[in-house]
Amino acid sequence: MGHGGGGALSAELTRHLFLPAYGNQALGELTDSAALTLGGARLAFSTDSYVVRPLFFPGGGIGDLAVNGTVNDLAMSGAVPAYLSCAFILEEGTELATVGRVAQAIGAAARAADVTVVTGDTKVVDSGHGDGVYITTAGVGLIADGVDIRPQRARPGDVVIVSGPVGLHGIAILSVREGLAFGTEVASDTAPLTGLVQAMLAVTPEIHVLRDPTRGGLAAALNEIAAASHTGVVLDERAVPVPEAVATACALLGLDPMYVANEGRLVAFVPRHHADVVVDAMHAHPLGREAAVIGECVAEHPETVVARTGLGGTRIVDLPLGEQLPRIC
Amino acid sequence: MGHGGGGALSAELTRHLFLPAYGNQALGELTDSAALTLGGARLAFSTDSYVVRPLFFPGGGIGDLAVNGTVNDLAMSGAVPAYLSCAFILEEGTELATVGRVAQAIGAAARAADVTVVTGDTKVVDSGHGDGVYITTAGVGLIADGVDIRPQRARPGDVVIVSGPVGLHGIAILSVREGLAFGTEVASDTAPLTGLVQAMLAVTPEIHVLRDPTRGGLAAALNEIAAASHTGVVLDERAVPVPEAVATACALLGLDPMYVANEGRLVAFVPRHHADVVVDAMHAHPLGREAAVIGECVAEHPETVVARTGLGGTRIVDLPLGEQLPRIC
Repeated sequence: MGHGGGGALSAELTRHLFLPAYGNQALGELTDSAALTLGGARLAFSTDSYVVRPLFFPGGGIGDLAVNGTVNDLAMSGAVPAYLSCAFILEEGTELATVGRVAQAIGAAARAADVTVVTGDTKVVDSGHGDGVYITTAGVGLIADGVDIRPQRARPGDVVIVSGPVGLHGIAILSVREGLAFGTEVASDTAPLTGLVQAMLAVTPEIHVLRDPTRGGLAAALNEIAAASHTGVVLDERAVPVPEAVATACALLGLDPMYVANEGRLVAFVPRHHADVVVDAMHAHPLGREAAVIGECVAEHPETVVARTGLGGTRIVDLPLGEQLPRIC
Repeated sequence: MGHGGGGALSAELTRHLFLPAYGNQALGELTDSAALTLGGARLAFSTDSYVVRPLFFPGGGIGDLAVNGTVNDLAMSGAVPAYLSCAFILEEGTELATVGRVAQAIGAAARAADVTVVTGDTKVVDSGHGDGVYITTAGVGLIADGVDIRPQRARPGDVVIVSGPVGLHGIAILSVREGLAFGTEVASDTAPLTGLVQAMLAVTPEIHVLRDPTRGGLAAALNEIAAASHTGVVLDERAVPVPEAVATACALLGLDPMYVANEGRLVAFVPRHHADVVVDAMHAHPLGREAAVIGECVAEHPETVVARTGLGGTRIVDLPLGEQLPRIC
């Protein structure tokens, strides 16, 4: 299970098995989406499979995730997502009403994200050889001239910004899957981030890195950026916005909010002198109202993420091995 | 199972469930790939999931299919495929050596098809909730100016050409899955068709329709073209190249070769006055050496495919309901 969790085991699989087999530069950059030039157009291209259980949860469902996840992977390169493909693997015996409900959610999420589902496929596997509905989306988007956003561009002196509270998606899935209640209902944060990214780019093209902290949470995203750019990251743990319900759930279950998945958040690395205008632009957008500076990029301890704790100490925030909670997307 | 077979039930699912949910013109054309314009470039975009059992079979494996299938969907719009995405859904407990062998096959097939795998994803599902390896590929390609190939363009007077012998892929899968032997080993025809299509386009841009007869075979492909163009198709059954091993297997098992899947063949609708040069160009290409004219497009009996049998009679070649043999791709 760990090989699909977006952590160290996933990275190992990619690095030791897929990269040597496919071997090319675009894939080697290990970004969420590939940046390409085709017919003179600068394109972003990305794909993700969705195997989340259950299919529906507070705040959304597999259909919303399948659209927003791929839209966000494209948006993290600064692209404006335009077209999606959508392929279903259905388990024999799945209610058509369930498939219909998922399809309706895909349509609604696509309209909300301003993308069009233009091509698709449906396969059916024998009962017992699937799990209701698996969805794979791919997407293409257009990258404007002058935009160059990728993990390799993180520089010492960049500040690290998170667009809002973390941990909601993972805890929402956990609460319904395990039948746990944490006082108030926790809803997934699933949302398309194109608008927020474009609002940030409107104030400065000088955004170095964007990443949506999905599988493996903030910890995985920051470790990947540190590794790609050979820089260090210092987090101020108290500055990371953790909703009370997420903190309670994590305390009860022995989870670390830094490792819990998000589906509608981004982290940005921005040069210090642009940080204020970028944060202001984020605060003015509905999905960035609680944006906060949570740390900085440093030359020390390259490829390592360190958190300053509330008690004045520091701790290393490792790349998770797998995922604390499998199949959250 | 029938809803994933590429026949009437698949079409119903798309028409009554997915189209209303996503609702847009590009998807409404129901071609194998969508034709788009993005950043001034004319693009084709397509996706398919692969759930074939077994994972390896004479002539290829799921990795070859996943590359060639999507490459061919793009090529059928006249596009030159350029970039692929590749997403794995692995069942927990699948041998890494198996995943490695599939990845190697993907790499080799991509190099043979002159495309680059630039982005991917891996998810792992619990043991018992998958079937070893499922793969979903998506692809983008570039469509040259002046090329307009889609099922709607079939016209009375077009001749119908098939690029080679039919039925090999389906019978190859069947032989290994059911442990049947048909005298000689039947190998899948899986192959990338870009080169053949470009060789045809080099002699005339006036190719109206291309389609790869995969799930549902020649029958499904021709019915879809007849339906999209509101024309009729008359086939000369004796002209359809059916290898002896396929004919024997079909006779033994009560299958109709017209409905058996292919993975490296195409059917083309070409104006009669261009037919000879197109067939000559196909004969000169390794994948078109046995190309044959098998029928014509007519104004009579619109949306219906009729075969002239060897006995001088005629029969209607219906859209199959599902697939004679599930999970062949």
